[in-house]
Amino acid sequence: MIQTPYLLFLGDAPDQLAAKVAQGIKDWRPDNAVGQFRMEGCKADLKLPDMDLAAAKEAGAKTLVIGVANRGGVISQAWKKVLIQALEEGFDIASGLHNLLRDEPDLVEVAKACGRTLHDVRVPSVKYPIADGKKRRGKRLLAVGTDCSVGKMYTALAMDREMKERGMKSSFRATGQTGILITGDGVPLDAVIADFMAGSIEWLTPDNDEDHWDVIEGQGSLFHVSYSGVTLALIHGGQPDALVICHEPTREHMRGLPDYKLPSLEEVRDAALLMARVGNPDCQVVGVAVNTQHMSEDEARAYLSEVEQRMGLPATDPYRFGCTALVDAVAAI
Amino acid sequence: MIQTPYLLFLGDAPDQLAAKVAQGIKDWRPDNAVGQFRMEGCKADLKLPDMDLAAAKEAGAKTLVIGVANRGGVISQAWKKVLIQALEEGFDIASGLHNLLRDEPDLVEVAKACGRTLHDVRVPSVKYPIADGKKRRGKRLLAVGTDCSVGKMYTALAMDREMKERGMKSSFRATGQTGILITGDGVPLDAVIADFMAGSIEWLTPDNDEDHWDVIEGQGSLFHVSYSGVTLALIHGGQPDALVICHEPTREHMRGLPDYKLPSLEEVRDAALLMARVGNPDCQVVGVAVNTQHMSEDEARAYLSEVEQRMGLPATDPYRFGCTALVDAVAAI
Repeated sequence: MIQTPYLLFLGDAPDQLAAKVAQGIKDWRPDNAVGQFRMEGCKADLKLPDMDLAAAKEAGAKTLVIGVANRGGVISQAWKKVLIQALEEGFDIASGLHNLLRDEPDLVEVAKACGRTLHDVRVPSVKYPIADGKKRRGKRLLAVGTDCSVGKMYTALAMDREMKERGMKSSFRATGQTGILITGDGVPLDAVIADFMAGSIEWLTPDNDEDHWDVIEGQGSLFHVSYSGVTLALIHGGQPDALVICHEPTREHMRGLPDYKLPSLEEVRDAALLMARVGNPDCQVVGVAVNTQHMSEDEARAYLSEVEQRMGLPATDPYRFGCTALVDAVAAI
Repeated sequence: MIQTPYLLFLGDAPDQLAAKVAQGIKDWRPDNAVGQFRMEGCKADLKLPDMDLAAAKEAGAKTLVIGVANRGGVISQAWKKVLIQALEEGFDIASGLHNLLRDEPDLVEVAKACGRTLHDVRVPSVKYPIADGKKRRGKRLLAVGTDCSVGKMYTALAMDREMKERGMKSSFRATGQTGILITGDGVPLDAVIADFMAGSIEWLTPDNDEDHWDVIEGQGSLFHVSYSGVTLALIHGGQPDALVICHEPTREHMRGLPDYKLPSLEEVRDAALLMARVGNPDCQVVGVAVNTQHMSEDEARAYLSEVEQRMGLPATDPYRFGCTALVDAVAAI
């Protein structure tokens, strides 16, 4: 569990896109973000108050979150200076970078001396159980995709937000490093040992109130041969009552696999339900979330209308048109 | 290399299935197994001579192999006492448990003091790639199960043996600790990091002669919610041309999951083919391997005949009746 709220470290981000993790935190958990720390030459701006470490401390920030991709896969000396000072001034540090904070001896040494914690959210910090498949109380929603990177995290976050706005009991459950940094908690599923994948998701989505929804971030796709095992562990560990199918209709082949075409929505629906009903016979598909960023608004609306007709399910682009219909369908369960 | 022959340690195995590691070694490398070591309460029996450490030493055993698997792979204090004594009496120890011998300070200390070796065969020793899904030359056969522990490894080993006897080009590809202990190499798939599971199986079954068969040991089941992700990674990483469905017809529920019934052979066939054809559109099911150990011979023959009729596929118990018909079907591809 990462201590909130955060000071968002943007470093020397070369552009706005490099700070997309920080942007995600600001967009989805604005209360977690008290300010931004920008170094000289930083080209990203979250429109948050610029703060130095002392000001952020004063504002209540407990953790400095590295919300920016680094260049060349190294933690630069310029960054180091700030990070070490942050530890000395009483901040924990959280990072989703490939190169781990814990592999930097100087950071480890200072963190230890100051009694601070280094959070590498790409690496599991919990000893997960093996899944026992027992029925848990409460409801669970899982985003499943035709492919990787089609908007599963965005869809889950958007639905969680709308559910909370309606007064429904809802928790977004992160399964990837960005989601973990946004919420301060979760399972970095792609880094979990194979035998414990489904168990880690049971751990993430425990017994809860009967009317509480865990909104689980999806990963991969049953049809993506590199990562399908991760997806199936999510389906069986998550025991979802409801599935939302996520799709990006202009993609010409599976991400990273030029020889593989995307499955149809029907194929994903049938395969995901077949597998999900092993763990939860009542599981149903409640709707389709489409990433229409590469379509005009007219094209997008026509496509969504066609999908609704064909599938007999609500279809929307949560980013462009909101997710009212999807949450309506969930609320009706 | 693990020094042979072995004393097979069965510990306090709760049932015969828990000792499948030892059973596999005894079945496939009988010359390596001089005896069994059973503790009080042990419910498994390999029908090998029961030996204490001194007797096993006298009989020439060089390594004590932990031939029993616990859920979660815990090394209990009761086991520890025996293991430490074994090291002191001059045995190496080999283990496929999740909990590593090398992570137990007392074992490490005694092994070092006595000049003995601790073998953890489960630890991946290779940095596996992420799967790229590219079509590879050569043929691949994969055993898929209705459940865990229904005879997938046995079936693969038996088919590999018969294929070799017929002069076919064949390699048994181990994906679990027993197979690795038997053959000396393989991928300890259940200990692989999630993102690299399918890639590890691509690595295990690389390009080969067009008429060469990799006979891949299966793991778990698409219908076993604890381990299904591992199974799907095998199906997508293995790119099988042929599947053999493995089944144990007297089992009343999924192993370790009292609330889960076994799927039918038809359900396994359909789900496995659906998923396998994502990676290899030509994949087919060639037969059914049934573990009939809990049936009389008449019952077994009647059951196999019924399955052949119903499925339109050869069905046999490889242990009881050989696997001629299954290898015939593979040879016809």
